[in-house]
Amino acid sequence: MEINKVAVLGAGVLGSQIALVTAIRGFEVVSWDISEEAVEAASQRYDKFGHRIAAEVDDIDERAVAEGRSRLSLTTDLAAAVRDADLVIEAVPENLAIKREVWAKVGAAAPARAIFATNTSTLLPSDFAEATGRAEQFLALHFANLIWKNNTAEVMPHKGTDPAYVDILGEFAERIGMVPIKLKKEQPGYVLNTLLVPFLEAGMYLVGSDIAEPADVDLDWRNSTGSPMGPFETIDMIGLRTVKAVRETRPNDAEWYKNFGALVDSMIEKGHVGQEAGQGFFTYDDDGNIVG
Amino acid sequence: MEINKVAVLGAGVLGSQIALVTAIRGFEVVSWDISEEAVEAASQRYDKFGHRIAAEVDDIDERAVAEGRSRLSLTTDLAAAVRDADLVIEAVPENLAIKREVWAKVGAAAPARAIFATNTSTLLPSDFAEATGRAEQFLALHFANLIWKNNTAEVMPHKGTDPAYVDILGEFAERIGMVPIKLKKEQPGYVLNTLLVPFLEAGMYLVGSDIAEPADVDLDWRNSTGSPMGPFETIDMIGLRTVKAVRETRPNDAEWYKNFGALVDSMIEKGHVGQEAGQGFFTYDDDGNIVG
Repeated sequence: MEINKVAVLGAGVLGSQIALVTAIRGFEVVSWDISEEAVEAASQRYDKFGHRIAAEVDDIDERAVAEGRSRLSLTTDLAAAVRDADLVIEAVPENLAIKREVWAKVGAAAPARAIFATNTSTLLPSDFAEATGRAEQFLALHFANLIWKNNTAEVMPHKGTDPAYVDILGEFAERIGMVPIKLKKEQPGYVLNTLLVPFLEAGMYLVGSDIAEPADVDLDWRNSTGSPMGPFETIDMIGLRTVKAVRETRPNDAEWYKNFGALVDSMIEKGHVGQEAGQGFFTYDDDGNIVG
Repeated sequence: MEINKVAVLGAGVLGSQIALVTAIRGFEVVSWDISEEAVEAASQRYDKFGHRIAAEVDDIDERAVAEGRSRLSLTTDLAAAVRDADLVIEAVPENLAIKREVWAKVGAAAPARAIFATNTSTLLPSDFAEATGRAEQFLALHFANLIWKNNTAEVMPHKGTDPAYVDILGEFAERIGMVPIKLKKEQPGYVLNTLLVPFLEAGMYLVGSDIAEPADVDLDWRNSTGSPMGPFETIDMIGLRTVKAVRETRPNDAEWYKNFGALVDSMIEKGHVGQEAGQGFFTYDDDGNIVG
């Protein structure tokens, strides 16, 4: 099936990036959010991200961004947003009740052909597939922040998804400049976080057990594997507040786990929450490079 | 203390690399192995590795290799090898009885000043520290294969090591072109394998659970983190036989673990044992690059 018209639900940080990049890549996009204030905030995000995209993506200039903006409309009317959509991408808050409510309305208003995709990070598509009213056309399309730069897009079906839609969404993702990664089954954390979480926890173990210093752990990983970042620079990039939130979903009674938790708490208390703050396990300059 | 004379025990793949690079970097080196046959084989390794080092290391040419060879002698006499050593580096087979026997002889023959280092990968220094007769001067100095290229050197004390030797060995490692990583405590797998094993097992989980294909797992990791290799290319580089051996030390009843083990077994049976064989999870050309 051909995708021409896309509705993006939620115009927060990620929703606005998805809507804008999709429009720049030639699709007709309707960006929906819940209130006039949210829509106004989104409009400013489009300006800000538009300039960054023009500066950072080789084949996109300010003119291409302006043309994309002309294909992008904003609305607070959900039924109108999806009424003629070939694809609906949902990026509303990570709250099951909100997701279910939005998808029930979308299911009632969207045309029968429309493919339904959620960008959920922490929930599973199966948690709210039934609310869409057409579970077989519903799956996840998961983006990372700054989607034009961190351009991995994970495509993940739930048990009831018709597998044909995995390929269709993969092709759509490529057309908007993403590298699609197709999963065959539901997996919390998709592929990337399934690899990343135990890797970061191994780093936490080494430091929480006082076996090695964060700088030495990172140096070993970089020098041994050629990777640009070790676990502690990665934690700084993710942000210590997010790492703390993830830790709280994975309770562990081990001494090293508690030690590392106490370290994270003391760093957050001092405002050393990571790269964004200029200080985490390492110190950063304004460009996000480690200093000293 | 100053290190000038180094004895390297065991002239196998890694021992011969350590001895040769150390000699090229200006130290007087005695290379010991158990038999005339072993010493003859080592001599051929020195030729082979010498050419590679001259070709691959910027500041080393054939002349520097030849000068290094002139500082390197071979012997089958263990007591003579260590009699005047400032540093003894042991790289004999990973067998506790052999390690204990060799270290007991070294302890009896080496001068009191000598620092004792083991390159053990799978044992811990504390497993045979007492056999050395001077546990406080004994610690691990752990190299990776092709030490001039994969130049991480992990320095790891056991509980009874005088911490001053961690710094001394770290400086020595830098002088022979290594990037030293200092550990504060014993840890099986040092830093690198402590990070690597759970990362690789997360990849095994994704494939063993039929959640994603190896190529997609690797692509996600490379594209999302900028790392040169994902878990399956890493497994191919390590070699499936080694991965199988490591798995056997970490029994796990989970279905995905058994599924992945069956896959590894079937690949080994077909000779698809990794990069070295030209075929593992991926297909490789003669230069070790993935084809197709």
